[in-house]
Amino acid sequence: MLPLLTRIDHVGIACRDLAKTIELYRDTFGLRVITVESNEEQGVREAMLAVGPGAAGPGLAEPGLPGPGGGYVQLLEPLTPDTPVGKFLARRGEGIHHIGYGVTDITQAMSAISEAGIRLIDERPRHGSMGASIAFLHPADLGGVLTELVQFVTVTPPPQNGREEDLTGCIGWRTGKGQPPHARESSLPVTG
Amino acid sequence: MLPLLTRIDHVGIACRDLAKTIELYRDTFGLRVITVESNEEQGVREAMLAVGPGAAGPGLAEPGLPGPGGGYVQLLEPLTPDTPVGKFLARRGEGIHHIGYGVTDITQAMSAISEAGIRLIDERPRHGSMGASIAFLHPADLGGVLTELVQFVTVTPPPQNGREEDLTGCIGWRTGKGQPPHARESSLPVTG
Repeated sequence: MLPLLTRIDHVGIACRDLAKTIELYRDTFGLRVITVESNEEQGVREAMLAVGPGAAGPGLAEPGLPGPGGGYVQLLEPLTPDTPVGKFLARRGEGIHHIGYGVTDITQAMSAISEAGIRLIDERPRHGSMGASIAFLHPADLGGVLTELVQFVTVTPPPQNGREEDLTGCIGWRTGKGQPPHARESSLPVTG
Repeated sequence: MLPLLTRIDHVGIACRDLAKTIELYRDTFGLRVITVESNEEQGVREAMLAVGPGAAGPGLAEPGLPGPGGGYVQLLEPLTPDTPVGKFLARRGEGIHHIGYGVTDITQAMSAISEAGIRLIDERPRHGSMGASIAFLHPADLGGVLTELVQFVTVTPPPQNGREEDLTGCIGWRTGKGQPPHARESSLPVTG
């Protein structure tokens, strides 16, 4: 079969204090903060930090974003204790929460993976970090690993009036509610 | 500061049955098995599966290996229950065990990270999967995340007489004890 996964897109890490954990990763490893945003549907406030030197890669027009081999560290702070990440923290403490892989066609990938007998948590793609189309797969069918598929589609420049600087050293852009937060927008159907 | 990490090199996943988990990842996602090897020092039998389409990337001469954006899924089965991965399984069950990031100079990276206040589990680099130089960082200083640094250095062709095919569909090479298992060898000092 053809490989469905194109790259390790990100590692999702659950933390109790997003600002402190951003500082930790920035100051220890020199990672660059690309976005800080809230996702109320998923009950998290989160940051995407680029791993690797900045370079324009496939689908990436911004020099601050990671090169094709980079990927992201995604830091996740729960908005409330009764969210999935809040429950994860209560049960297991801080640590790696999930792994996200890049795919070129998320609908096709979900179909193929479902046919292989893996249960989908999301029946249709939905909006994830930075406007990507994402879908989660059931960890019970994947050796205890909560697994996310990520498809980035097209690049559009971020609105200049949406740009913010803040104390975390974020070079990215925050958005208002309902607005894809970054330079990428999916042309696929998304839910939520 | 300069970014110390160049890429997400791999995600390490603890499993109880290596052969079955290799099959799961191969059959679900089409990942290619690059090596299956035992590391007695670390008390694991492990497999490296390439994520993404095969392509020659920086430091990678073999077409079966992942391209520059690919990375690996590393599956880890403990050799005995009293090993670190065996204890992890007993405590937390199957799932993500650690994350590995690429660095260009592991000795320099370890020094910088130590100066940033993060404790090193390994005081000097040692041999990891596929002959890389690796070092682990203390999860208690990194928000509960066991973190590994990985440096691949030079590429030499694998010995043809060391090539094996097996039922897992492995396209890589197994090695005898004490022998770097793959096409890469470090020129740095390594312990163990």
